Amino acid sequence: MTASDELRALVQRYARAVDDRDFDVLERCFHPDATIEGVRGVKPLAEWLETMRAPRRYEATMHFLGDPLIDLDALKMDTYAVVYQMADPASGRADLTLGIRYDDAVVHHGGRWVFRQRVARVVWSR
Amino acid sequence: MTASDELRALVQRYARAVDDRDFDVLERCFHPDATIEGVRGVKPLAEWLETMRAPRRYEATMHFLGDPLIDLDALKMDTYAVVYQMADPASGRADLTLGIRYDDAVVHHGGRWVFRQRVARVVWSR
Amino acid sequence: MTASDELRALVQRYARAVDDRDFDVLERCFHPDATIEGVRGVKPLAEWLETMRAPRRYEATMHFLGDPLIDLDALKMDTYAVVYQMADPASGRADLTLGIRYDDAVVHHGGRWVFRQRVARVVWSR
Repeated sequence: MTASDELRALVQRYARAVDDRDFDVLERCFHPDATIEGVRGVKPLAEWLETMRAPRRYEATMHFLGDPLIDLDALKMDTYAVVYQMADPASGRADLTLGIRYDDAVVHHGGRWVFRQRVARVVWSR
Repeated sequence: MTASDELRALVQRYARAVDDRDFDVLERCFHPDATIEGVRGVKPLAEWLETMRAPRRYEATMHFLGDPLIDLDALKMDTYAVVYQMADPASGRADLTLGIRYDDAVVHHGGRWVFRQRVARVVWSR
Repeated sequence: MTASDELRALVQRYARAVDDRDFDVLERCFHPDATIEGVRGVKPLAEWLETMRAPRRYEATMHFLGDPLIDLDALKMDTYAVVYQMADPASGRADLTLGIRYDDAVVHHGGRWVFRQRVARVVWSR
């Protein structure tokens, strides 16, 4: 596998770890000192993982990711995503779909590629 | 083309074959002894192809696939898809959109990569 | 980067250039003599760029592209896209989502891969 292939696998592995709520795999997608910036500000990895461990309010989620635009010289990736958060119809809750753009700085650490810094920006939501 | 490139092309070729109703190309995406597991149980390839040849109930379909997560050692792929089944507005039928996850075992056979076993799981539908 | 990697980057760079309204990057995705065929007929590059420079009628757009099916022998690509055109809720305008299929002829020109001829076909719209 080339570096490009490994980076593509990294973003896809991230998506499955979130959707499957596999927090060990999720943690291993990141550098231990990674920061994640989202709608709730910039968080260090451990704190961000805590927010992810909170009970899910939707019946199913699907982090559907496009092919990342990879800049191997800058060690950056830019990935489009549509995140489906689907409610149990019996819950009375509405679905929430988000168009998201992930800007990632990546680094080779401990024998694999990981996210060093992530900025997640919501482009649209419905 | 690397094995990863060929496997990416396989899933994309599958999507176009289904949407274009090109059953020759579709058949060649699979090993002759392939099995396909979906909502209607496990089917051998020939039987599954028969179900695909049934007249389409929608005006257009689009099998929109994410980048597969490829495990070259295990010869497995895990691919997210959003399948758009769009009705002719005049038909009175509703659209149906499905979030699907394909778990594939692949094999190199007859000079190309093909699906040996596929499990398609509906994650959500609307 | 392999030719396949560069061609994947080309389609993703195109998507970001359109969504960010970065017309310099957009122009550099194409051969100077490129033609683009869409719902408004076949246009040479300069004329097509003019239509793209018109003020945007939506608050945000997202050209969410699947992995292209690449034919390196024929120098062709076939890419599925879902284009989200999201209206400002205050505008009273409705969102428009399009399922599009891009058929591209590509060429290596001036040291990089570019689109030589593009045909964009709307498969569905809602």
